[in-house]
Amino acid sequence: MRAVVFDKYQTFPSLTDVDRPTPGPGEVLLKVAGAGACHSDVSIYRKFTADGVVKLPPPFILGHENSGWIEELGPGVTGFEKGEAYLVYGPIGCQRCRACSRGQDTYCANQASMPYLAAGLGRDGGMAEYLSVPARNLIPLGDADPVDAAPLADAALTPYHAIKLALPKLSGGGKSALVIGLGGLGQAGVQILKALTGATVIATDLREDAMQRAEAAGAVTVPAGADQAARIRELTGGRGVDAVFDLVGATPTVSLAQQVVAVQGRVTVVGIGDVEVPWTFYSTPYEAEMLTTYWGTIEELHEVVDMYKAGQIKPEVERFSLEEALDAYSRLEEGTISGRAVVTPHL
Amino acid sequence: MRAVVFDKYQTFPSLTDVDRPTPGPGEVLLKVAGAGACHSDVSIYRKFTADGVVKLPPPFILGHENSGWIEELGPGVTGFEKGEAYLVYGPIGCQRCRACSRGQDTYCANQASMPYLAAGLGRDGGMAEYLSVPARNLIPLGDADPVDAAPLADAALTPYHAIKLALPKLSGGGKSALVIGLGGLGQAGVQILKALTGATVIATDLREDAMQRAEAAGAVTVPAGADQAARIRELTGGRGVDAVFDLVGATPTVSLAQQVVAVQGRVTVVGIGDVEVPWTFYSTPYEAEMLTTYWGTIEELHEVVDMYKAGQIKPEVERFSLEEALDAYSRLEEGTISGRAVVTPHL
Amino acid sequence: MRAVVFDKYQTFPSLTDVDRPTPGPGEVLLKVAGAGACHSDVSIYRKFTADGVVKLPPPFILGHENSGWIEELGPGVTGFEKGEAYLVYGPIGCQRCRACSRGQDTYCANQASMPYLAAGLGRDGGMAEYLSVPARNLIPLGDADPVDAAPLADAALTPYHAIKLALPKLSGGGKSALVIGLGGLGQAGVQILKALTGATVIATDLREDAMQRAEAAGAVTVPAGADQAARIRELTGGRGVDAVFDLVGATPTVSLAQQVVAVQGRVTVVGIGDVEVPWTFYSTPYEAEMLTTYWGTIEELHEVVDMYKAGQIKPEVERFSLEEALDAYSRLEEGTISGRAVVTPHL
Amino acid sequence: MRAVVFDKYQTFPSLTDVDRPTPGPGEVLLKVAGAGACHSDVSIYRKFTADGVVKLPPPFILGHENSGWIEELGPGVTGFEKGEAYLVYGPIGCQRCRACSRGQDTYCANQASMPYLAAGLGRDGGMAEYLSVPARNLIPLGDADPVDAAPLADAALTPYHAIKLALPKLSGGGKSALVIGLGGLGQAGVQILKALTGATVIATDLREDAMQRAEAAGAVTVPAGADQAARIRELTGGRGVDAVFDLVGATPTVSLAQQVVAVQGRVTVVGIGDVEVPWTFYSTPYEAEMLTTYWGTIEELHEVVDMYKAGQIKPEVERFSLEEALDAYSRLEEGTISGRAVVTPHL
Repeated sequence: MRAVVFDKYQTFPSLTDVDRPTPGPGEVLLKVAGAGACHSDVSIYRKFTADGVVKLPPPFILGHENSGWIEELGPGVTGFEKGEAYLVYGPIGCQRCRACSRGQDTYCANQASMPYLAAGLGRDGGMAEYLSVPARNLIPLGDADPVDAAPLADAALTPYHAIKLALPKLSGGGKSALVIGLGGLGQAGVQILKALTGATVIATDLREDAMQRAEAAGAVTVPAGADQAARIRELTGGRGVDAVFDLVGATPTVSLAQQVVAVQGRVTVVGIGDVEVPWTFYSTPYEAEMLTTYWGTIEELHEVVDMYKAGQIKPEVERFSLEEALDAYSRLEEGTISGRAVVTPHL
Repeated sequence: MRAVVFDKYQTFPSLTDVDRPTPGPGEVLLKVAGAGACHSDVSIYRKFTADGVVKLPPPFILGHENSGWIEELGPGVTGFEKGEAYLVYGPIGCQRCRACSRGQDTYCANQASMPYLAAGLGRDGGMAEYLSVPARNLIPLGDADPVDAAPLADAALTPYHAIKLALPKLSGGGKSALVIGLGGLGQAGVQILKALTGATVIATDLREDAMQRAEAAGAVTVPAGADQAARIRELTGGRGVDAVFDLVGATPTVSLAQQVVAVQGRVTVVGIGDVEVPWTFYSTPYEAEMLTTYWGTIEELHEVVDMYKAGQIKPEVERFSLEEALDAYSRLEEGTISGRAVVTPHL
Repeated sequence: MRAVVFDKYQTFPSLTDVDRPTPGPGEVLLKVAGAGACHSDVSIYRKFTADGVVKLPPPFILGHENSGWIEELGPGVTGFEKGEAYLVYGPIGCQRCRACSRGQDTYCANQASMPYLAAGLGRDGGMAEYLSVPARNLIPLGDADPVDAAPLADAALTPYHAIKLALPKLSGGGKSALVIGLGGLGQAGVQILKALTGATVIATDLREDAMQRAEAAGAVTVPAGADQAARIRELTGGRGVDAVFDLVGATPTVSLAQQVVAVQGRVTVVGIGDVEVPWTFYSTPYEAEMLTTYWGTIEELHEVVDMYKAGQIKPEVERFSLEEALDAYSRLEEGTISGRAVVTPHL
Repeated sequence: MRAVVFDKYQTFPSLTDVDRPTPGPGEVLLKVAGAGACHSDVSIYRKFTADGVVKLPPPFILGHENSGWIEELGPGVTGFEKGEAYLVYGPIGCQRCRACSRGQDTYCANQASMPYLAAGLGRDGGMAEYLSVPARNLIPLGDADPVDAAPLADAALTPYHAIKLALPKLSGGGKSALVIGLGGLGQAGVQILKALTGATVIATDLREDAMQRAEAAGAVTVPAGADQAARIRELTGGRGVDAVFDLVGATPTVSLAQQVVAVQGRVTVVGIGDVEVPWTFYSTPYEAEMLTTYWGTIEELHEVVDMYKAGQIKPEVERFSLEEALDAYSRLEEGTISGRAVVTPHL
């Protein structure tokens, strides 16, 4: 079958022929409906090295935002019918530790000894005609469009997880949230916050069109500038922001978060943008928590799909055939993709 | 001044002349803007007796949903300006116990020895030209209309409190809530659930017009009938309702709640409608909690006002002059008030 | 191999020869170290019928509290070494739904269509020389004694789960808990409450020796009697009990729970003892939750094992060889087992 | 009356004669039983200036850890009897904002415009024969010794609050906590953690005797040194510490906290020791929260008193007469006080 393969560190992937996988015990073979192209893929093939903290040694097929139709069941798998559509929870841990037992493979206790992190991250992903994954990683899509659903597996699950953990800070009237960075994850973040909370959702980005899309989704936007922190604080009645979500994670954005967060608020840094800020007793207000986060859980992906089916999350997708997949990555690197590029091997 | 006085058990109140109150230490005298007429008032003057569980001995001025403008400050009070508008948190406990310390006077540890429960419930309330209450019970309204705000003090705070405690059950995608009983509290409940959660809000009432108003606020309605429980469960994808709010609290409504609540869900009974249902190991699904609740906290009333200012709660109010106040109670007893009757002594 | 088989409804089990199981895909074959005999087993072979709500059709090997040593790995299983000791999480759900994804197979969404509930409950359990279970159901015991550990899988996990969900009610100084029923689960409950909270732990049972054991574990006991509720309430400084755990679940015990629970407290009914009490607006104090519960999660069983290794839970075990297993059940029915009977096929 | 007065910035306090206060509306006059001397007092008279962030302009009587007997009630106060013993909640906010309404005056929304923070911090404290405070700030001590109780108001309430907020991280079996800095607050922290959780409590300090006292209270101690982080992590089975409480708050201690905290753990910095550490995406594990905290709430002080009465918190107190109060401060500066110095004006 045809597949987009990450062959070698610091090298653009290739579109090539590989063997169609056979589902192992407990696995299911999917005919791929959609595979989202993510900026992390670019980091992997451009920046990763054999000496890096996270290794993910090539070769493997890219694609960690995947959906597909059941094609074949591996030994021991029941309860699935050929042709049914599923979204794939990407992370695959040891399946034996307590984190995996609660469906949070992202924090697998045995990650250091695992040869991969997820489908498409160290083992074969979905940028191919077929994909084999553990049956427990499948989320039923029912009648919902599987192609548009594909990016939900990361671009929606990641902000959803960050927001869900922060919901106690946003429970009730008079609350506020700030989303910094309005790419795919940020736009999903705005939609999720508007749907799940009554908070005033404030959003910011350097791109005017990204701010306009956030406004259309119900956010109040505040552009960058010298008075940005003051204007944001004013929108909260002076109290500060209850929950900040920084999808950029660079020094200026985290500094902004520290300036505007409320007493007893929360700053979740999701983006990995080389932030380094000083942390002192007074760098954040009393009891304002600072933390990072990473992806989400299987159960949360069920809930993301519920929101997608209910129209509460609306992915913005540009489709590419499998033969155009390398173009999708080129355009991703150029920054000319609006929304999420999804490769559709069978359309 | 003129006031609506509950003079005697099981007797319709009178409109009469009483002395204008003088604010005591820590109290503030308000010029009343609005005083809501509540069904509880009817229970008090129609049903309460000297031998009842809750006594509230007459005479006292009715009205426990009050707003007003600062008129005069009692000894020791600072931080208020004459003419500013405030909403009144009704419950007044001992101010010394741990429940009062957290602004939850409803569960005052010394309630049994207190001569009253709240302004308008055992001590003078707001159905008068002036009202004196503890300064700590005041919630600033700023520029918001104080007349429409008056009913928030009970008709919105009560469902808000019940809902806020249930928010952990409604956090995230794919959740559902059911509101049983669509009078003033139920309509506010629907508005609050729609604003604060992403849940499917299901609503039911015997009155068609009440259901239409709930639909206009975003609820899905299911009329009474043999298949009601089945239809509600179907709207939840078969999983059952995550949080039921029963504003009626009669045997059939609580039975319905028990039938439709989900595993790990929650049934909050707010209405005091003479329910008696059997509780067995299988009368509710596993881990579905059943509980009652009563009114709310000072901080929650701040949050209710935030929602009112943000347009998330829209009280439906019919205004009466103080001279018409007894008509308001008569019409309340007849059931011909749409929304909430608010007496406005100075308009 | 030899095994204790539930052959037929309403019939005492037999000790017989059966084939040694072969581990399927994703499964592990354990050489059984210990298998606890539980009162539920007695219910199954004495009371269950083909027409019952829960069916569990015979024949199958009994034993749902199991531990053992790795003997053989089924297809696709890695990460286990022969001879390592593990405790078995009994419940086995569909592995595809959101409850199973979070390791809570007890609330599997597809339970109605599953042919079994757990190892030993509808499919072969651990009262045999060997047992095959899904690898994900294994909890590592390390150097801890696997025989004493066996009953933890139910007799400790069940109260642990009930208590863990109630911990928010017991967080902080000045709290109190009540354990009703001091058999194996109740004694474990007392130990868990003493270890995990600072609450005053009150305990009651009809058997004096059971109360003495609870006292030795740090509980304050209050015997049955006309003034029992008053005496319990007095131990809480009049405030009532923050969290009641009823391991009996009969009408008198649940009535006691309703009488002594505090405002904003919680009554968890764990025992299935044919309770039927009336539920009215005033049958429990404001915001006191009533709920049932059932068994626990995989992650919680990891935590139970942590407590066992730390000496915080000390099972009281009486050992029986496999040939004596039927005697163990006879004595269980007679009520002459002190602590938990554990069958040890290889000792 | 005699009193210890902070007269002037950067000047040692004086013992002098001042007028006995008269309780204002809503206030109570206490005959002081005990007033704890705290390191913050030393900071105030040694380091504070007219230009500082927090001002607290002199003169005022020191002492923010106070207990006493009711002497006289101000206007409007009821429910107290002369001679009853109470502990004083120190913080005094505006009494009008939502933080004050929930008894958390520490985060008063109007703090910037308030002339003081607490009794003994900007307004007269308890290092005197008599003290006047708002009635709502009183916590009943009953028969418990009021002298030993005095330091609870800060030295126990502060760690209690930090721990209570972290309890969700410590709920259940197999958890661990680390207390850095074993002065008065740290020792109380160890006692509170041992009483309220089942966690392994690890403790560290540079002073051997402080570590011995923590060990006597049930902690496992790990001295400073190159392998300290590794040894701490080993005590947690490699998982890292679920909740770190840093009572020092200096750069090396916070760095240690960052090294040992677990994924999804929590680092609460309580001590204000001039920390400055870099915060990057990888400076703490995923979802490990970093935050500061400050003092506690009225309700929490009730709970601290419950723990004191139950023997779960045992203050270590050295008593001084009022005439010796300045010696107490001198010895505090010298570091020769073991436990807490409490001034007892009437013993």
